[in-house]
Amino acid sequence: MTGPDPLPWGEWDPLARDAAAERVARAALTRLVEPGDAVFGRAVRAHGAAALLADLRAGAALPVELSRRDPAGYRVRLGGHDPERDLARIAGLGGAFVVPGDPGWPTQLDDLGDARPLGLWARGAAPLRLAALRSVAVVGARACTDYGTHVAATLAADLAEAGWTVVSGGAYGVDAAAHRGALVVAGRTVAVLACGIDVNYPRGHERLLARIADEGTLVTELPPGAHPTRYRFVERNRVIAALTRGTVVVEAALRSGALISARRAARLGRQVMGVPGPVGSPSSAGVHVLLREPGSVLVTRAAEVIEQVGLIGDDLAPVLSGPVRPGDDLAPVTRRILETVPTRGVSSTARIAREAGVGPATTRRHLDVLAARQLVDRTSKGWRRRGGA
Amino acid sequence: MTGPDPLPWGEWDPLARDAAAERVARAALTRLVEPGDAVFGRAVRAHGAAALLADLRAGAALPVELSRRDPAGYRVRLGGHDPERDLARIAGLGGAFVVPGDPGWPTQLDDLGDARPLGLWARGAAPLRLAALRSVAVVGARACTDYGTHVAATLAADLAEAGWTVVSGGAYGVDAAAHRGALVVAGRTVAVLACGIDVNYPRGHERLLARIADEGTLVTELPPGAHPTRYRFVERNRVIAALTRGTVVVEAALRSGALISARRAARLGRQVMGVPGPVGSPSSAGVHVLLREPGSVLVTRAAEVIEQVGLIGDDLAPVLSGPVRPGDDLAPVTRRILETVPTRGVSSTARIAREAGVGPATTRRHLDVLAARQLVDRTSKGWRRRGGA
Repeated sequence: MTGPDPLPWGEWDPLARDAAAERVARAALTRLVEPGDAVFGRAVRAHGAAALLADLRAGAALPVELSRRDPAGYRVRLGGHDPERDLARIAGLGGAFVVPGDPGWPTQLDDLGDARPLGLWARGAAPLRLAALRSVAVVGARACTDYGTHVAATLAADLAEAGWTVVSGGAYGVDAAAHRGALVVAGRTVAVLACGIDVNYPRGHERLLARIADEGTLVTELPPGAHPTRYRFVERNRVIAALTRGTVVVEAALRSGALISARRAARLGRQVMGVPGPVGSPSSAGVHVLLREPGSVLVTRAAEVIEQVGLIGDDLAPVLSGPVRPGDDLAPVTRRILETVPTRGVSSTARIAREAGVGPATTRRHLDVLAARQLVDRTSKGWRRRGGA
Repeated sequence: MTGPDPLPWGEWDPLARDAAAERVARAALTRLVEPGDAVFGRAVRAHGAAALLADLRAGAALPVELSRRDPAGYRVRLGGHDPERDLARIAGLGGAFVVPGDPGWPTQLDDLGDARPLGLWARGAAPLRLAALRSVAVVGARACTDYGTHVAATLAADLAEAGWTVVSGGAYGVDAAAHRGALVVAGRTVAVLACGIDVNYPRGHERLLARIADEGTLVTELPPGAHPTRYRFVERNRVIAALTRGTVVVEAALRSGALISARRAARLGRQVMGVPGPVGSPSSAGVHVLLREPGSVLVTRAAEVIEQVGLIGDDLAPVLSGPVRPGDDLAPVTRRILETVPTRGVSSTARIAREAGVGPATTRRHLDVLAARQLVDRTSKGWRRRGGA
């Protein structure tokens, strides 16, 4: 995924070098900003990662969105890091740094708006986007009881056997039981980390994480070598929430981070589910609070989870369901052009070319492809994007 | 409660003899029809219990509502029973046969429509209506686990300590634990039986039922000596549901009768609650199914139950809350007159008198009382009942 992407009709994109530069810049920026920084994300969306990085390196004035930030601090953090080396490192691990617009990008993360990750460092057996298409998060307490371990492992195994990917955070307790449950039945599992992809955290999970990298998928928005922090755990949870169609909480104490995950999932329109337990158990108290909130659903087994997150005909036609959107499978440049076409009003080929940073002839060729795929309409006054594309 | 009721201004109601006849007739009819017989209930409402009983005894043609019933069968069932003796028996036990219109009648049972009990045989320390004003049903499996016993007893004790009456069915398991929990803290508890008030069922509960009769309230719509049947258990559950502001199910297997109770409560607009348990426990499986249904609420402790069934300011002003309605405390004849006054349009004193079966002068006197209490308005064209009264 780190090389240039073929265009839909099989030629090599002449603009792939731009896309590659954007990817390198995003890789560099993951060292600069903390996960979930929506202000920075807005600046990247407005100006492009490459241009922003170049300005930062040159000591130029920062764009207005970042006027309250400290450019000197950014320059200090950039020093001594080589994004090309990071990209080589992830490629050496058999992985990739996936960015928005890549065919491998899980587009459901776009629901995070400007707080979506700048990119994801990923490695594993299954491509992340494919693995995350039909996925459910199973999360919960680190200090869970035997009951929690048992329930999480059983639920994950049954979900995985039914073809669902089990997403969790790789932590002790419920997370580990969920990953293991999926691995036991040779199912798909994704661990979303709050540290670099090459950092063994928690230490006791070295073998588990290695196994997930081998048989499942490891993913993180933090650059190689980054260590977890309390803040990074919280923001990691937004990725778990956004990546999946729903979050199941299995055991959580009253102030558990799993509840924050679940409420974040709810705000993203994902299904929130909880597995009940004995009312005297402090490890279930948080789940019970969650289950008393509107919109959350009590579940006791995988079939009930699937009932919540699945769609009719899902198993027959996975491509029709879930977070897949028209244009998801476009090459980066085509997608960039598509995103430049307005949904209200129209725009000329020349203006689209200018805004997308692509030559007019190439732009016109891409627009024709988009029109043939019914993603844009050509009107007498210019191009208009079709609703929701 | 079996004697004539004083009118609000302290005189004896000249029509109390009619009311007494109606009460005796209803006592007789509880031997004749099974609980929840809405067709019979409609006939009683239309013609009065005394008139209906007289027709049945005389072998006269039954009213049109009962044209498909077997009058000979009714006569056979009436034979050999003396309602006056039954009434003397309940009075001898320190109890009463309470009928709709009595000051002691729990008016929330009127929500059952024509399926409301013809009357209730009640005995105990607290008057039924008062005990049932702020009440919650705690029901569940007979074959409950230690967990269920513990949860039911704790919940009931905490509810009773907070001033709530715990209503249940007197059965083994969760029911018994709930009654005992309330009794332990010297709180109020009501057992609604599916048999005669003098029948010890279940046998092993002889002492518990005696204690409830002594310190709480025993109530049933079945006449003395009646034995429980499967059908009577089911219809008993409608009384539990209607009597209370909400039903909490503590442990119930998948096909438990407690679930039928809970769904009946939901249809009556009562709050349905369930206490979760371990997902592997068959004794909690039914509760979990219930908690997945819309409208039901997961509860783990008494405060959460009270949050569902209580109203703001409840503890300060119980009279403003729950199933109490304006006019609830009226003498039967005043109430009958009130019920004859239309809420839409108006009616003359003469017409009201005719429909209520009361003389015009008496009717006028009662209407004046009702107007003074702002339950009816006198307009230039006649009397109109105030909304919702």
